[in-house]
Amino acid sequence: VGARLGDSALYGHLWGTPELREVFEERHRIAAWLEILVALARAQAEAAIIPEGAAETIARDASVDRLDLELVAAETRRTGHSTLGLIRGLRAILPAGAAEWVYYGATVQDLTDTWTSLAMGRVGAVAWRDLRAVEEACLGLAERHAATPMAGRTHGQVGAPITFGLKAAGWADEVRRHLDRLREGAPRWLVGQLAGAVGTMGFFGGRGPELRRRFCELLNLGDPGISWIAARDRIAEFAGVLAMIAGTLGRIGNEVTQLQRTEIAEVREPTSEDTVGSITMPHKRNPEVSEHLVTLARLTRSHADVLVEGMVGEHERDGRAWKGEWMAFPEVCLLTGTALAMAREMLEGLEVDEEAMARNLGPFAASEAVLAALAPALGKHRAQGLLHRALASARATGASLEEALRADEELAPHLTDHVVRAAKEAAAGSAETMVRVTVARLREARSEEDERWP
Amino acid sequence: VGARLGDSALYGHLWGTPELREVFEERHRIAAWLEILVALARAQAEAAIIPEGAAETIARDASVDRLDLELVAAETRRTGHSTLGLIRGLRAILPAGAAEWVYYGATVQDLTDTWTSLAMGRVGAVAWRDLRAVEEACLGLAERHAATPMAGRTHGQVGAPITFGLKAAGWADEVRRHLDRLREGAPRWLVGQLAGAVGTMGFFGGRGPELRRRFCELLNLGDPGISWIAARDRIAEFAGVLAMIAGTLGRIGNEVTQLQRTEIAEVREPTSEDTVGSITMPHKRNPEVSEHLVTLARLTRSHADVLVEGMVGEHERDGRAWKGEWMAFPEVCLLTGTALAMAREMLEGLEVDEEAMARNLGPFAASEAVLAALAPALGKHRAQGLLHRALASARATGASLEEALRADEELAPHLTDHVVRAAKEAAAGSAETMVRVTVARLREARSEEDERWP
Amino acid sequence: VGARLGDSALYGHLWGTPELREVFEERHRIAAWLEILVALARAQAEAAIIPEGAAETIARDASVDRLDLELVAAETRRTGHSTLGLIRGLRAILPAGAAEWVYYGATVQDLTDTWTSLAMGRVGAVAWRDLRAVEEACLGLAERHAATPMAGRTHGQVGAPITFGLKAAGWADEVRRHLDRLREGAPRWLVGQLAGAVGTMGFFGGRGPELRRRFCELLNLGDPGISWIAARDRIAEFAGVLAMIAGTLGRIGNEVTQLQRTEIAEVREPTSEDTVGSITMPHKRNPEVSEHLVTLARLTRSHADVLVEGMVGEHERDGRAWKGEWMAFPEVCLLTGTALAMAREMLEGLEVDEEAMARNLGPFAASEAVLAALAPALGKHRAQGLLHRALASARATGASLEEALRADEELAPHLTDHVVRAAKEAAAGSAETMVRVTVARLREARSEEDERWP
Amino acid sequence: VGARLGDSALYGHLWGTPELREVFEERHRIAAWLEILVALARAQAEAAIIPEGAAETIARDASVDRLDLELVAAETRRTGHSTLGLIRGLRAILPAGAAEWVYYGATVQDLTDTWTSLAMGRVGAVAWRDLRAVEEACLGLAERHAATPMAGRTHGQVGAPITFGLKAAGWADEVRRHLDRLREGAPRWLVGQLAGAVGTMGFFGGRGPELRRRFCELLNLGDPGISWIAARDRIAEFAGVLAMIAGTLGRIGNEVTQLQRTEIAEVREPTSEDTVGSITMPHKRNPEVSEHLVTLARLTRSHADVLVEGMVGEHERDGRAWKGEWMAFPEVCLLTGTALAMAREMLEGLEVDEEAMARNLGPFAASEAVLAALAPALGKHRAQGLLHRALASARATGASLEEALRADEELAPHLTDHVVRAAKEAAAGSAETMVRVTVARLREARSEEDERWP
Repeated sequence: VGARLGDSALYGHLWGTPELREVFEERHRIAAWLEILVALARAQAEAAIIPEGAAETIARDASVDRLDLELVAAETRRTGHSTLGLIRGLRAILPAGAAEWVYYGATVQDLTDTWTSLAMGRVGAVAWRDLRAVEEACLGLAERHAATPMAGRTHGQVGAPITFGLKAAGWADEVRRHLDRLREGAPRWLVGQLAGAVGTMGFFGGRGPELRRRFCELLNLGDPGISWIAARDRIAEFAGVLAMIAGTLGRIGNEVTQLQRTEIAEVREPTSEDTVGSITMPHKRNPEVSEHLVTLARLTRSHADVLVEGMVGEHERDGRAWKGEWMAFPEVCLLTGTALAMAREMLEGLEVDEEAMARNLGPFAASEAVLAALAPALGKHRAQGLLHRALASARATGASLEEALRADEELAPHLTDHVVRAAKEAAAGSAETMVRVTVARLREARSEEDERWP
Repeated sequence: VGARLGDSALYGHLWGTPELREVFEERHRIAAWLEILVALARAQAEAAIIPEGAAETIARDASVDRLDLELVAAETRRTGHSTLGLIRGLRAILPAGAAEWVYYGATVQDLTDTWTSLAMGRVGAVAWRDLRAVEEACLGLAERHAATPMAGRTHGQVGAPITFGLKAAGWADEVRRHLDRLREGAPRWLVGQLAGAVGTMGFFGGRGPELRRRFCELLNLGDPGISWIAARDRIAEFAGVLAMIAGTLGRIGNEVTQLQRTEIAEVREPTSEDTVGSITMPHKRNPEVSEHLVTLARLTRSHADVLVEGMVGEHERDGRAWKGEWMAFPEVCLLTGTALAMAREMLEGLEVDEEAMARNLGPFAASEAVLAALAPALGKHRAQGLLHRALASARATGASLEEALRADEELAPHLTDHVVRAAKEAAAGSAETMVRVTVARLREARSEEDERWP
Repeated sequence: VGARLGDSALYGHLWGTPELREVFEERHRIAAWLEILVALARAQAEAAIIPEGAAETIARDASVDRLDLELVAAETRRTGHSTLGLIRGLRAILPAGAAEWVYYGATVQDLTDTWTSLAMGRVGAVAWRDLRAVEEACLGLAERHAATPMAGRTHGQVGAPITFGLKAAGWADEVRRHLDRLREGAPRWLVGQLAGAVGTMGFFGGRGPELRRRFCELLNLGDPGISWIAARDRIAEFAGVLAMIAGTLGRIGNEVTQLQRTEIAEVREPTSEDTVGSITMPHKRNPEVSEHLVTLARLTRSHADVLVEGMVGEHERDGRAWKGEWMAFPEVCLLTGTALAMAREMLEGLEVDEEAMARNLGPFAASEAVLAALAPALGKHRAQGLLHRALASARATGASLEEALRADEELAPHLTDHVVRAAKEAAAGSAETMVRVTVARLREARSEEDERWP
Repeated sequence: VGARLGDSALYGHLWGTPELREVFEERHRIAAWLEILVALARAQAEAAIIPEGAAETIARDASVDRLDLELVAAETRRTGHSTLGLIRGLRAILPAGAAEWVYYGATVQDLTDTWTSLAMGRVGAVAWRDLRAVEEACLGLAERHAATPMAGRTHGQVGAPITFGLKAAGWADEVRRHLDRLREGAPRWLVGQLAGAVGTMGFFGGRGPELRRRFCELLNLGDPGISWIAARDRIAEFAGVLAMIAGTLGRIGNEVTQLQRTEIAEVREPTSEDTVGSITMPHKRNPEVSEHLVTLARLTRSHADVLVEGMVGEHERDGRAWKGEWMAFPEVCLLTGTALAMAREMLEGLEVDEEAMARNLGPFAASEAVLAALAPALGKHRAQGLLHRALASARATGASLEEALRADEELAPHLTDHVVRAAKEAAAGSAETMVRVTVARLREARSEEDERWP
């Protein structure tokens, strides 16, 4: 009986995408395991460790469709051994001449670690593709709104003006760093495992290293050069990068949720006709997707952390850490993949209300610019002191920034044209320039790289 | 497609028990939701908020068996609303006169929070029962081995003797504190929720509090007195207690794994005939269950932490925190419940090798007792210094403790009968006394309490 | 050289209070250790384990003022032993007749665990006192604003009305549960440790249990009945409760920060004359304290989690887990204590802007009430559908709720007086009632309990 | 009063190194801040934003030795502003003509983020140097023990033989991946910040980007191209790499602790003459350093996780996340740096007991090799079954592997010379080959890279 909410018929779409589910779903996972066993048999046949015919038979007959999965499951439970059920299932469908040569000299971790690398390959490719789409959506927003003024906010308070494009360009810039991380990490992550019982490939006498090289090659994976059964940094690092990706998407989601607040209403995540926010409060339009990105970031981080904890394993295999990977690694992948798909859709359809942005700038948005304009003449510190006083008074009376300046007897004499213009403009400094520079840099990076990873 | 390893046909038994799966499996969860809606309708009919006949019809017809779960799921996805699919599913199976009155004035969280409380009730009851069984198994070990000497080890080094019973009594004592925590927390956790959209029960005019009282009563839950939609400490606390329970079981499991090491071999977890440790190293007998208890402790802790993080929610409902609960809460329950079932079985069948325990005590086990015997005459600090020297030399020569003492010219004159006896006995101090006292105290607590919780 | 920001001269006030610093500062900690050693000597003298005169001398001379702390530190580093430096320091200041009898038969953990219990006692007392003050402040807000309408917000969107008092009463209710947790946990936490090298009190022959009983009594601690050197659940639980307390304060702080947003401006944390929000944006008034409460909640949670991880220790002492406590436990206490002091001050001086609250209710605040009023006649589901349509149209035109209802041709015929009144009132349901009930319940609890803990 | 154990006179050496303390100690941190302000002034003078003379005066007079740190601290506390105390302190020591131009147009985060980058530079350089030393020590062990047989252990059980060199080469290989991570991350991490109040550099009109470029250049940092005040992935990533480094060192430390167990005793961490393991159990030799590496890994991971959590910040600055960095970032650096220094010393002096290693191989170490030798004739599955039976019987009787094989009537006929040789040799497969290949690869990488980072 399925007890995991992540696979719920009602809510599963919040915690997985069809594409990624396929990587981790049991039937597909076993199919991928069989591909690994086929590659192993082929490499062994080439090295004359097993008969050529056996490898051919295994390649032909060891298919998930022929496997009695109930038998496999029952034997797994009965023996308490992670792959003995599978082996017995394979023996049941392979002719005797091949049955003896399947899974020959390998151990559980050869299968699961190699599969994990293949899974990292598939998940990483999805992440690369979707991150690039997220980047593209951010770049589009950055370009369209390079000069769209809005309130910069720190500590939840409206401060000086920025442009919405600057915000979006900052997102794109962060996403680009994740793309760099994915690119750099790939050769570390995408390696096979053929270690045998304790890492020496003892079963194969001296032929292990060459066998492993060919085995990895057949699977399109790198050769690790040395067994890594107790070295789990690869998986911890991959998960850590995904957790950071989810973190960035959580930040973007959170920003959308907050900017969509009723009282701010500067952006809105896209909704379909059918979307219903609240049944008891029909006027509400909830930021479901953007909020959910934060949830996904939290859960992903939590699972990724388990994988760093698992780095401290004992001896040649430590079940305490290793079994933790079984649960945490797929979860990290599924949740980050969901976040990517959601963020992409959200950003591609994001509604931006430029008027609301302008409205929310508030009366004192130009105070930094005024400070800068006053500083050369008054000194920055004195200018600050006087401005503080003038604005405190203006807050009480409802005066505008310019009125506040004129009303202050010490400031009034210094209101040059330059200062007055600064007070009126609420200019966003170098925001637009940074947007242009960043967009150009990222577009160049995009044009130079492959659309596919790795 | 099910992508979660926790529900794998091959490996699901490592991450759930049939009993707890039933609490969280979708069909059962929806059935529990319907019970809640029935209770709500009944309470509303009693208060004349809805027609009496409608409540009766809802109680009769709102069954999960009649519900079109595919429709429910499809509408949930289509509307993006967590329970609108269910509502539409109910409308499809209820006559018009009842359909208008189901889920009347309630919101999603009324349903999910109340369900969470019911789930805490069921999970807590399982935990109570299994913790008591674990306690009983520990008490049995403590009694049988109250005086069985074994090495006390600190920092992985053999130190002075303890008894195995002392270890087991310490486990029982820790388990007992968890039982106390469960008992104390129950009234806080097992309360219903009827808050409406934002916590005011605004839909019900002034009749909310009385309606809620009756609604909770019908479900055998406490009345919270005030809406708690944004107060998530109850769930965080419950999960925290489960994580600590899993931690204790992880400690016991880890101890068994380590004492089962080939070089120590003092205990062995029970295995069935069919259990296979390693296919490539047929001589191995792996501590599968005990190791797995540590894995479960780690994962549980990680999920429980998400729930503490979720306490910092915003306003009257914060989807970022709330949806995190959806995933983390069931996981905490399923994993801890699995740990309890496994620990219970492991402890009930634990094999204890008293000879190995005696053998591992080592030649210097009595050094603390000798120190104590020498201290009154020599002064503790001087006695320590001399012993250090004597034992360093004995380690090099392979001498026994007594030989080492006799060989040291400064110690030799002080070897009274008392000291010599101390050197030979390797007594475990007050271990046995503490075992007896602790067993008596815990047995008394057991006899005074209910076998069922809460 | 002090490298920890927590003790910075500039920023230390953000991470500790003078009162709690005193518990953990080295000189004070050593003084507390000496009190423990004095109690041990006294108990030993009473049991004739050491000479009466030695205990008296130890009680008189073993003061931190006489100790050469540089020597203690140097010897600690040189020997790599956690308390040998202290022992040598004591031997240097005690006459020979007493020096041999100090720290007699005890081990490091007897000292540090007993000290930890004493520290829990002091920190718990501060937490109890400050939590009650926070509760009082919340109750005051709840009473004053029991009927002050404001927007209830879910998912960041303005929904139906609540009262500010309901929010504050919810805080108080949550704080009260923490007080219950502190009260219930005290007997578990406040126990001494006298275990000796491996937990058997072997050094004391059979006299250990009675010695421990008296030792604990002299320190005003409970007698644990059995050594708990490897059972760390007490500390994990205490830290978990503090982390939840910090979580609640983080929730309150976060709420204040968000409600203090420029665009919402319903509350403001108190500031002194001297407080400066931003030097470059002089108009800003940052919510420094409330924001910081969230920071403290995050850090506290992180440290508390290390202590749950530490529950899975090995054998009779596991340095890997135990040393983690050394760092994490004080941090949990210092940060939570700081949060309590800050939250208390923030809540006692919180500025509430009732006008802003009323203003932010928005035009559709009464939609839930209107739905409730329409439901009996139209059926809830049909009423919902019609309202959705009417409000979508009103949002576009800027019409009021009443206008929207009148403009909808299907709704217009159903606008009874009752419905129209509902549309105008924006009543907060049973908010005020729940506030009254909750305040009364909490006040009664307060009147029945001791102001001091435990 | 210093309340943090990390800076304790007694125990501070466990939580920091003198070299890294200097990076984070307040006086040094302020000195580094002043260097940043000097660089800013110089860049501004070059751009004619401030007078040339002012920059010169600032460079000359803004030294930490002249600063009244008590005043700075008092003003920081009084104003509640993070750097206003410093600014006032600077004004007090600068002549009027310079005082107005210090910290001109910058904000707190410009100072603290740029400092963080400089600190990452210093900490990264230490990590690079010490990681390379750890790698060198591992390579030395790998070379010396490339062919030293020892038990490979999985799940705590003795399995087939490995060599100690294989273990050490696996450590070196993992360390090398961290070096790669450090090298790849450097350009991302080591960038300055000059953003102004909300990221637009609004104070500087259009001159911001060029000013930032020069400012970064003067500090030997990269130019980020765009403000990154709300993008915290750089710090999260750096901390994540350190946490993984600490994880690897924790793994190595844990391995040493376990292999140093009394019953295994294959390695011992180096101790000085003065080291005292236990005062009550004088025969013990505790693995203090190796155990502590695990503690440091746990704490580091916990702090690093806070920084990933902090990635989800709000708007242009989110104090909730940012202040968390203040505490967590230095801690990650200090703890990892301590772990590196300790691991280096431990590995350089590690004592290896080859005899114990040989002894612990146990009677069945060759069972995998025998299985491999039997498989071609018997078929792997049948061979496994027969071996299982034979070894179960041998375990009971105490027979050797060869005796067990001969005693089994079905196996006996298949005991060719090849099989018998396999049973006697306990060969470690390709362990030695992998060691040679790995050592060669790593030595080549070392020879091609700079000893200094970045």
